[in-house]
Amino acid sequence: MDKSINFRRLIPDGDTHERDVCASCGFVNYQNPRIVVGSVVRHAGKVLLCRRAIEPRRGFWTVPAGYLELNETPEHGALREAREEALARLHLGDLLAVYSVPHLSQVQLIYRAEFAALDSDQPLFGAGEESLEVGLFDWDRLPLGDIAFPTVHWMLDHEREVQAKGYHGPFGNPA
Amino acid sequence: MDKSINFRRLIPDGDTHERDVCASCGFVNYQNPRIVVGSVVRHAGKVLLCRRAIEPRRGFWTVPAGYLELNETPEHGALREAREEALARLHLGDLLAVYSVPHLSQVQLIYRAEFAALDSDQPLFGAGEESLEVGLFDWDRLPLGDIAFPTVHWMLDHEREVQAKGYHGPFGNPA
Repeated sequence: MDKSINFRRLIPDGDTHERDVCASCGFVNYQNPRIVVGSVVRHAGKVLLCRRAIEPRRGFWTVPAGYLELNETPEHGALREAREEALARLHLGDLLAVYSVPHLSQVQLIYRAEFAALDSDQPLFGAGEESLEVGLFDWDRLPLGDIAFPTVHWMLDHEREVQAKGYHGPFGNPA
Repeated sequence: MDKSINFRRLIPDGDTHERDVCASCGFVNYQNPRIVVGSVVRHAGKVLLCRRAIEPRRGFWTVPAGYLELNETPEHGALREAREEALARLHLGDLLAVYSVPHLSQVQLIYRAEFAALDSDQPLFGAGEESLEVGLFDWDRLPLGDIAFPTVHWMLDHEREVQAKGYHGPFGNPA
């Protein structure tokens, strides 16, 4: 790797924050928080979880979720991630939660979801390339000791709260 | 500007999408959708609007809103934008809306808000550097012909709907 990119921290004209600006060519490397989109999929009194085949947290359980891509709506992103990671086609429902993870510059938009096309001959789900296995779990037999990320605990708790008390808008980070 | 950055479109190892990768040094220019955070501020039966001092849409009216920065929560970002653009300190309420503008790769998180610190001697608001003027508008005298962006129309409509019918969760893009 040569040194042709030569970033310096400075405030570009008309901006209010320091950015990485290449002293050679003027390229401004704007970095923005990233949006994670995902879904809590419920089916027959159970919830869908995926065991991660990739780092970070390989081998731990999560929901289908990933980074929103350019020119994608959050809803389309959540559906795409469920196809990729759980080979599942979903119907999305309410926005369950908006979590922020500022130390990772991440905002998560998590939807409630169910399987679409229940009358199909195809299996409802399977392990995509980024998943070691995918399964439906009873709510009282969740793999709570092997959950990949704190926000997965939060969304599972919040989904149960919606099931018990109804939907009153998206949850945020717990206190 | 020299040609030291030499981007090619290719899929980096372990990735699933094409990215701009510098053929000289390997730098991957990940581009992500951007998060706009803002607020609809109501006060004494009116709503706060700012007339933009910057492009795009200089001279047109909007709400205090802007891009979320790294390591910032959406709530902090919305409060910061209100300070910068309207010199206003706010209390945020419910998440009014989550809009997506996929052709701009933008997701907007818009909160309901009121002024904080009403008992202060300071004025409640003023024109920040990015605003030509800031004002409170009666709902039946909004500058509807001079609104900066379509989503501003949406959020004003949605705020009125919440005032009429109560809050039932965030709105999305209108049909």
